Amino acid sequence: MKFIIGKEDLLNGIRIVERATSQKAVQPVLYNILIETLENNQIRLTATDLVLTVITTLDAQVQEAGKITLPAKKLNEIISKLNNDLVTIEAEEGSSNVSITCRKSKFDIIGISATEFPVDVFNYEIDESKCFDVELKPFLKGIRQAGFAAASYEVSNLLSGIVCDFNSGILEIASTDGNRLARVREKISSSVSEQTQLIIPSRTLNEFLKMSSFIDEESVKICKDKSTIILKSEKITTISRLLEGQFPRYNQLIPTESPKKAVVNVSQLIAALERVSVMVNDKTSIVKMHFADNELTLSADTPEAGKSEDTIDIEYTSEELMIAFNYRFVLEALRIIESEQVVIGLNAPLSATVLKPGNDEDFICLIMPVQIR
Amino acid sequence: MKFIIGKEDLLNGIRIVERATSQKAVQPVLYNILIETLENNQIRLTATDLVLTVITTLDAQVQEAGKITLPAKKLNEIISKLNNDLVTIEAEEGSSNVSITCRKSKFDIIGISATEFPVDVFNYEIDESKCFDVELKPFLKGIRQAGFAAASYEVSNLLSGIVCDFNSGILEIASTDGNRLARVREKISSSVSEQTQLIIPSRTLNEFLKMSSFIDEESVKICKDKSTIILKSEKITTISRLLEGQFPRYNQLIPTESPKKAVVNVSQLIAALERVSVMVNDKTSIVKMHFADNELTLSADTPEAGKSEDTIDIEYTSEELMIAFNYRFVLEALRIIESEQVVIGLNAPLSATVLKPGNDEDFICLIMPVQIR
Repeated sequence: MKFIIGKEDLLNGIRIVERATSQKAVQPVLYNILIETLENNQIRLTATDLVLTVITTLDAQVQEAGKITLPAKKLNEIISKLNNDLVTIEAEEGSSNVSITCRKSKFDIIGISATEFPVDVFNYEIDESKCFDVELKPFLKGIRQAGFAAASYEVSNLLSGIVCDFNSGILEIASTDGNRLARVREKISSSVSEQTQLIIPSRTLNEFLKMSSFIDEESVKICKDKSTIILKSEKITTISRLLEGQFPRYNQLIPTESPKKAVVNVSQLIAALERVSVMVNDKTSIVKMHFADNELTLSADTPEAGKSEDTIDIEYTSEELMIAFNYRFVLEALRIIESEQVVIGLNAPLSATVLKPGNDEDFICLIMPVQIR
Repeated sequence: MKFIIGKEDLLNGIRIVERATSQKAVQPVLYNILIETLENNQIRLTATDLVLTVITTLDAQVQEAGKITLPAKKLNEIISKLNNDLVTIEAEEGSSNVSITCRKSKFDIIGISATEFPVDVFNYEIDESKCFDVELKPFLKGIRQAGFAAASYEVSNLLSGIVCDFNSGILEIASTDGNRLARVREKISSSVSEQTQLIIPSRTLNEFLKMSSFIDEESVKICKDKSTIILKSEKITTISRLLEGQFPRYNQLIPTESPKKAVVNVSQLIAALERVSVMVNDKTSIVKMHFADNELTLSADTPEAGKSEDTIDIEYTSEELMIAFNYRFVLEALRIIESEQVVIGLNAPLSATVLKPGNDEDFICLIMPVQIR
């Protein structure tokens, strides 16, 4: 194997695929990136942790065909420190020793044979009739806004997925961990032949979000092959297992009307929550909120450390209400909201509370209160 | 106790003294800051870990005299999150509950009685005849340049101190951990009556360096009281134990002449060392350096991972030499050097190697090579 490639091109390629390398692998080869020469002066980089696989193709001057796997971390360290010039990568056939040369810098790095790389995870067949195009902009915005409420990553847990409902004209994205829920509806002009609901692991979509800056096109092709999803642009292919099962009918949980409404300045509420949270009990993270007479009073206490209290001016003329939340859920939702005001829809101390940006009817966040004492 | 103080003033005071709070205290009160009202509308903040004590006085509107200790970390968190306005701090006499109020933010924080604070560590008597003034600028520059080579912090180890030699007209600062040595000589116009050598814990001087931006004056008063040193400016007093014993006669270790000399670009050498270090053996940190014919070739290897090599152009016409170093020592010295070029004075593969900035005769750094194989 021998090819010559620009340092920045190679580094970008490594940064795209290394997100899929395993963090704690059973097989050492899962820490590695598979490097293969292709026809037409291209090389292909692939990494996988057996759930998520990312593949990218790069232009290079291929002088001798071949393939090898190299440790992603070391490879990134080496390439990122090279001068910005052409890099020559070379290995004798059958050898796992790869030499990397750039100007007067020279590295010998020990890899693992490409035959040990688990190719079956990305050997899929695309049934083109099951593919459709989705505009990248609303898709990414939806993941950013409605993906944060998913349960933390566990392959077996349906709630660790983000549900994406593709309809003609509308894309609905939602996530919930049982204590909170985020849902967004985005207009799309994509050609979805029939309604398709996919439950995609949140890790897959969050990594996709991070690498999306490397995608040049305005839309991405989405294909489903049994329990696999493929997100395909010209240079980057992301393949992931899908989560299977019946996702909770979350839309039924969202109250259509809230009897009490507060209009609150988002940055003031964030500042007050951060202040009050200094005295929050680490075990419960509970902050109490008292809505009354155009004022919101937040309070927290920890027996051994002390108490905190803060009051901000809001618009609220309904009956007074004391309600308590895990303040982290409220903060995370507020940080996603891009408008100046948030409309908080309230009912009773133990009813689901609705947060909506003042200027955006399409985004909604639901938080379950906690019982006090 | 009751006083009113500007938020930023109080926060600066906390940031100055909290450096002296203990990181792992036997007595909980050592995590706390002692707050005392003084006459003339001032308050005093004190923190100590029993080795280092820092005291600062702040202007405040004192309405009721008193004193209390409050946990430094919580106090910093609370005050830093307040709006920028006047803060009222209040405690009933005999109570450990302190209320902090700023606009509509209110905190109750539980402290520890001031009587538990170990006052003996900063009850010292200043013998003014043993005090002298030192200009801050050369003193701080000396600590920055020659303090980094000290052994890591252990109260019992003399080499964890930075030796400061005050002479009339010259201040010499040096540190060594046995493997490397840094020494700087700075001109001072201070009135030292007799030569004074102090071995000051490196932690004391490093914390002093960090808080020095809060010192308004151009010089600081240094007083020695038995085994205690006091660094005194108008608003900040730093008190520290001194290390006692005979510091190695380091000047004898510095070669007066180096038979071989290389002139090297500092940033090129840093970049090459960082590149080559990717393949360094983590156990030894050894990078080999080969000087020959106006070229320096650096190399490293780890059996399981691979090898690295880099060559840079230098000025070197002496006999060729292969020498090896812990590359971290070389990097740390190079990062202190502010000039474009470094002059490396070499002798034999196991002789002390001298690094001098190209434009500064007053700073010198010595590194012991390591034996290869």
